[in-house]
Amino acid sequence: MTNKQIILKERPLGLPKETTWELLKTETPQLNEGEFLIKCEYISLDPAMRGWLNDVKSYIEPVAINAVMRAGGVGQVIDSKNKTFDIGTYIYGQTGVQQYAISNGKGFYKIDPNLSPIYRYTGTLGMTGMTAYFGILRVGQLKDGENVLVSGAAGAVGSVVGQIAKLKNCKVIGIAGGREKCDYLINELGFDGAIDYKSDHIYKKIKEYFPKGIDVFFDNVGGDILDFALANLALHARIVICGAISQYNTTTKTKGPSNYLSLLVNRASMKGMVVFDYAKDYPLAMAELGKWIHQGKLKSTETIIDGIENFYPAFLKLFSGEKLGKLVLKVTEDL
Amino acid sequence: MTNKQIILKERPLGLPKETTWELLKTETPQLNEGEFLIKCEYISLDPAMRGWLNDVKSYIEPVAINAVMRAGGVGQVIDSKNKTFDIGTYIYGQTGVQQYAISNGKGFYKIDPNLSPIYRYTGTLGMTGMTAYFGILRVGQLKDGENVLVSGAAGAVGSVVGQIAKLKNCKVIGIAGGREKCDYLINELGFDGAIDYKSDHIYKKIKEYFPKGIDVFFDNVGGDILDFALANLALHARIVICGAISQYNTTTKTKGPSNYLSLLVNRASMKGMVVFDYAKDYPLAMAELGKWIHQGKLKSTETIIDGIENFYPAFLKLFSGEKLGKLVLKVTEDL
Repeated sequence: MTNKQIILKERPLGLPKETTWELLKTETPQLNEGEFLIKCEYISLDPAMRGWLNDVKSYIEPVAINAVMRAGGVGQVIDSKNKTFDIGTYIYGQTGVQQYAISNGKGFYKIDPNLSPIYRYTGTLGMTGMTAYFGILRVGQLKDGENVLVSGAAGAVGSVVGQIAKLKNCKVIGIAGGREKCDYLINELGFDGAIDYKSDHIYKKIKEYFPKGIDVFFDNVGGDILDFALANLALHARIVICGAISQYNTTTKTKGPSNYLSLLVNRASMKGMVVFDYAKDYPLAMAELGKWIHQGKLKSTETIIDGIENFYPAFLKLFSGEKLGKLVLKVTEDL
Repeated sequence: MTNKQIILKERPLGLPKETTWELLKTETPQLNEGEFLIKCEYISLDPAMRGWLNDVKSYIEPVAINAVMRAGGVGQVIDSKNKTFDIGTYIYGQTGVQQYAISNGKGFYKIDPNLSPIYRYTGTLGMTGMTAYFGILRVGQLKDGENVLVSGAAGAVGSVVGQIAKLKNCKVIGIAGGREKCDYLINELGFDGAIDYKSDHIYKKIKEYFPKGIDVFFDNVGGDILDFALANLALHARIVICGAISQYNTTTKTKGPSNYLSLLVNRASMKGMVVFDYAKDYPLAMAELGKWIHQGKLKSTETIIDGIENFYPAFLKLFSGEKLGKLVLKVTEDL
């Protein structure tokens, strides 16, 4: 079978270019004992993928040059020499950005297409949802009724974080780009307020929304926004460092938070997280997130881009912000 | 009685100047019911005092213009209309930088001059020791055998932090200014190694000393040193933000740590502390620190400057580093 793959060709400086990746057509190889063949349907697009392009020590190896671009994906097993993953099974795993993937099952798990559309397993019922769930509840140690600020709030992780905090009776303010997204946060997701980083005076707005200071700041963005939040912490505040999308494409040094001494003044903490650490509790989180979705208490929004050929422009939307909720790339041609 | 007092005259920009404070001679007023008069003997000089000069919201009110400069001090009660603090009692409390202080007892406690020289109650058996003790054990959550880096290691807090970590069987490396201080850390205090920030390549040395990364970094300094430590964290590392002496006199923006995303990569945390939060457990810590001193397991070093007239040049030594261990100002003229 012909397999279209997105191959990493060069390491970008700053924002990736068209020449960063290349579309390659290959033939899918024969299966070895224990392997299975997946027809990929949807690929997860995430800001973290930008980090995997850099040749630096991180929580995961960088993607090698000439390798298939790493990504999570969902699809169906269409051939199998593996006893656990039968033909017909739907799975989630690190398929990479390609139409067909071969796996031995390591890190893959089965998903139920009857419970939710399968692309949702790349998002709210997948790593995105897990990140939000463990980030705000475990790392952020969220308590009932606290004052919560979320950056990247209209994104895949932020939108779920904010809704979980609302379910915990918190006051939740989101930061997002543009009036439309801000309206979506308030009107669709039930946030208590929203700050448009493109037109609002962010610092002033944070001060207004949090007269007693922020108890938990869930940060996906970094840069100035992190500094503004630091300047408005409540005593014993917790900052969850989930990402720093404003800094991922910088060609100069990452902007460090000048106001970090607010951690001292407020006896506050700033803690980083990587979702993989919570793997053993994924089923627990998925069950609860799934329940909330079915009860209508949690909304899951996805932006789906069609066609593996559109990988590059789709990827750029992660950073331009031209999308809402989870960004997914549909790679099957016949669905 | 004539009382020499150090009065705050103006808020400094950057390093305080001679005109920042003024020496004033006043007469000690009459005692009201409940008050007592202290003859101050030693005044504690601490980097945190620099922060109290700035007119900003912090964990404590700024010192008012024309007020006595705030400071901890030790001395003897020489007159009393207070039932708890009799004449002859030795006390520690916020006396301010002056020769005689009046108090109603709030925040003051008795000290035993037979157990230790009384100036030690401003240092290792006082707030300095408390800061070290609770900082490394409670905030840093130090575990036996971990790899520990301490900045400002030859200072009042750092020298105690490092020795506590050695008592907990940790590998301890200190950062200090100059060969003499580094030798003192290794030969006198039993540190496993020392980095001279004035002449060593700090980043390279940290890498060499911590092949498996830093588990706990106790930071008194901030600036580049914090960034170098961030670049060398072990998984689940804890950074204790106790101070940032390199930044206290800056006239530009505080340098934020560019490498803060290492917190994410290493699932690490950075947490601020203010010693006052542990007040209810001070007796516990004092007892243990006192025991260690008497067992010869903990060395306490003090640099004592003589004369209240020397307050300003003494204060500058906090930042120039021309002192070892705890800096104390002797303000009695007849001891």
